[in-house]
Amino acid sequence: MAVNLSPPDPSRLYPIAGVRLGVTEAGVRKAGRKDLTVLLLEPGASVAGVFTQNRFCAAPVQICREHLQRATGVRAMLINTGNANAGTGEDGRQRAMRTCAALAGRLDLASAQILPFSTGVIMESLPVERIEAGLDAALADAREDNWARAAEAIMTTDTVAKAFGAQLTIAGVRISVTGIAKGAGMIRPNMATMLGLLATDACVSQDLMQQLVTELAEASFNRVTVDGDTSTNDSFVLIASNKARHAVIDSLDSESGRALKGALLEVARKLAQAIVRDGEGATKFISILVEGGKTQAECRQVAYAIAHSPLVKTAFFASDPNLGRILAAVGYAGVDDLDQGAIDLYLDQVHVAQRGGRHPAYREEDGQRVMRQSEITVRVVLGRGAAADTVWTCDLSHDYVTINADYRS
Amino acid sequence: MAVNLSPPDPSRLYPIAGVRLGVTEAGVRKAGRKDLTVLLLEPGASVAGVFTQNRFCAAPVQICREHLQRATGVRAMLINTGNANAGTGEDGRQRAMRTCAALAGRLDLASAQILPFSTGVIMESLPVERIEAGLDAALADAREDNWARAAEAIMTTDTVAKAFGAQLTIAGVRISVTGIAKGAGMIRPNMATMLGLLATDACVSQDLMQQLVTELAEASFNRVTVDGDTSTNDSFVLIASNKARHAVIDSLDSESGRALKGALLEVARKLAQAIVRDGEGATKFISILVEGGKTQAECRQVAYAIAHSPLVKTAFFASDPNLGRILAAVGYAGVDDLDQGAIDLYLDQVHVAQRGGRHPAYREEDGQRVMRQSEITVRVVLGRGAAADTVWTCDLSHDYVTINADYRS
Repeated sequence: MAVNLSPPDPSRLYPIAGVRLGVTEAGVRKAGRKDLTVLLLEPGASVAGVFTQNRFCAAPVQICREHLQRATGVRAMLINTGNANAGTGEDGRQRAMRTCAALAGRLDLASAQILPFSTGVIMESLPVERIEAGLDAALADAREDNWARAAEAIMTTDTVAKAFGAQLTIAGVRISVTGIAKGAGMIRPNMATMLGLLATDACVSQDLMQQLVTELAEASFNRVTVDGDTSTNDSFVLIASNKARHAVIDSLDSESGRALKGALLEVARKLAQAIVRDGEGATKFISILVEGGKTQAECRQVAYAIAHSPLVKTAFFASDPNLGRILAAVGYAGVDDLDQGAIDLYLDQVHVAQRGGRHPAYREEDGQRVMRQSEITVRVVLGRGAAADTVWTCDLSHDYVTINADYRS
Repeated sequence: MAVNLSPPDPSRLYPIAGVRLGVTEAGVRKAGRKDLTVLLLEPGASVAGVFTQNRFCAAPVQICREHLQRATGVRAMLINTGNANAGTGEDGRQRAMRTCAALAGRLDLASAQILPFSTGVIMESLPVERIEAGLDAALADAREDNWARAAEAIMTTDTVAKAFGAQLTIAGVRISVTGIAKGAGMIRPNMATMLGLLATDACVSQDLMQQLVTELAEASFNRVTVDGDTSTNDSFVLIASNKARHAVIDSLDSESGRALKGALLEVARKLAQAIVRDGEGATKFISILVEGGKTQAECRQVAYAIAHSPLVKTAFFASDPNLGRILAAVGYAGVDDLDQGAIDLYLDQVHVAQRGGRHPAYREEDGQRVMRQSEITVRVVLGRGAAADTVWTCDLSHDYVTINADYRS
């Protein structure tokens, strides 16, 4: 199903010193699958996160924000699938807090040192007892080389687990980066997707963490969309375990700061793109590049209008070069003073439209050839400035409807 | 296919004195179907229109705007299906002008007295010769009782022709209103849908026409959505043939003005809702009512977020009361200071969510029962003011994907 996406390569999922993961089957929604994950941090780790801007944010998202603000030193994370604990009101908050307290009690920590994450169906009560009953098994399973199993345990409608790693050298010290993510539908991150976790053993000052995680999200998870639905639970968390023996990085303008950000971004982008490649029902991976805008924001606005158009998405599914639909989406993207007579459109290297009309040399068979590929780049040139931006998305297929019509049954 | 939508009732399609319609098969795209319509007005008719806000507006839309501004007295309209003449640049403008000139020549009019409309595939050259070759047959067919055949001739992916009529009495004089529309996909009118024509024999001052057509569109075509794609060709035109013998209406605040607007709005709303009932692949007709907002605009914004969510739309298709998806859409609608703890959700009479969480008395089987209906009202109470607004939409089914994946083949 997923577009050019292989299962994680265990040899590239580097253990991160000071970060252990454990998984178990808690039966949150269905029996017979791993659905509960704990992530344990040694003291001294730096943690920061970005979260959904959906006003109906889930109870665990509210609690993550509060616990991160208290800065009492996050020491553990608790992740369940099968139930999003969103749209659950005050009762949902209390249930999420009870799971934090249960884990904190077993680890001799304060509840505020736990970050909870939930993913799954909205507006159902979180089964606290089942989660609590699974904690001991998950804790017993915890080890540093468990990233691949954790990537599996956080899946919902995902068809392929998503985990990537990278290594770099800072001041002669080998540094590792490993990340996992899940998410295949309700994907139009406006902060970060459903759940992304990125960890490194590098030493990063806590003051720098929020800036770093925000910039990473902006250039990775905030550039992808499957269906335009911003989830209630989007969370993207960055962990620096500070175990590597190099001078603490306290600026992204330093050589080591740039190197680390580069490696983190490489993994974050792979994870974000993996979510699109495994988008519900996806058969094609589409990069939408909008150039020649007055601002980066308007380029992204146009790119998202194309990426969200059901007509454009079904044309990609059908491999039908019905490319006027792309021009129509550019036109309604909301750039009020756009001049259609200045716009060019390319499909990979094929020049489709020039100055707002069909290019004289454009032949249907050239468009058709590109549309049959599994990876396609749409390039729109607005002809009004020097800004550019890119968004990644997938097509809209029968399977998207099937998956989302049958999700709960 | 269409949801509770019957073919037009000829006995309710009242001839409008001074307005004749003729149709023919011009073979614009495919042979064997009526695809060319002319509408002829006697001198003295008042005409006004509203058009798409898509910046990639089609050549005929640009020309309609120009011709209406010149106020030389519109005397005819020329409508083709099969080709939208959009995304066609300067060549498209010249082709549209050539069709106007061809019709004007046959009627001894100026080109500026013709309004052209095109609907169909984007970014293909308009076959002017075929249209010109069909004009004589269409003109020979012109008569006042031809509304039903015109409604059929403007269809594209529509499965049912859309035409409604109404009658009223002004100062003892019987007045008729008849309208036709088409449009089943690329429907998120931002002025009016693909094509709506509404005619009355009432006497309306030209000065009042623009206000009247704008207010009518605002309360009808601008409240519906199928897939959120704003067409390049949306046009809604109001004709008053001024043939009825009553005092000219020059204000909507008068008794006769209110009565006429009421009848016009009744027909316009039926046409707009018919487009949703016949939305591509539609199996359900959904009314989304958002109340308790600070402004009508924010209510409509929330209603459109729900109406455009692929996850909400597929849940309706599946009759699955996965209603948390509606709350999620409310949350990402973009009302920045929304308090989720103030929000209630109803499905018809079933109270689903209260103060942001599942209502204690809500039972899944009650939601399930409503979801199985072919007509459903979603009511969201924002709890922050007294404003309200309504949007009409349909579900997202396998057939939507099939129709739009196969449209050109």
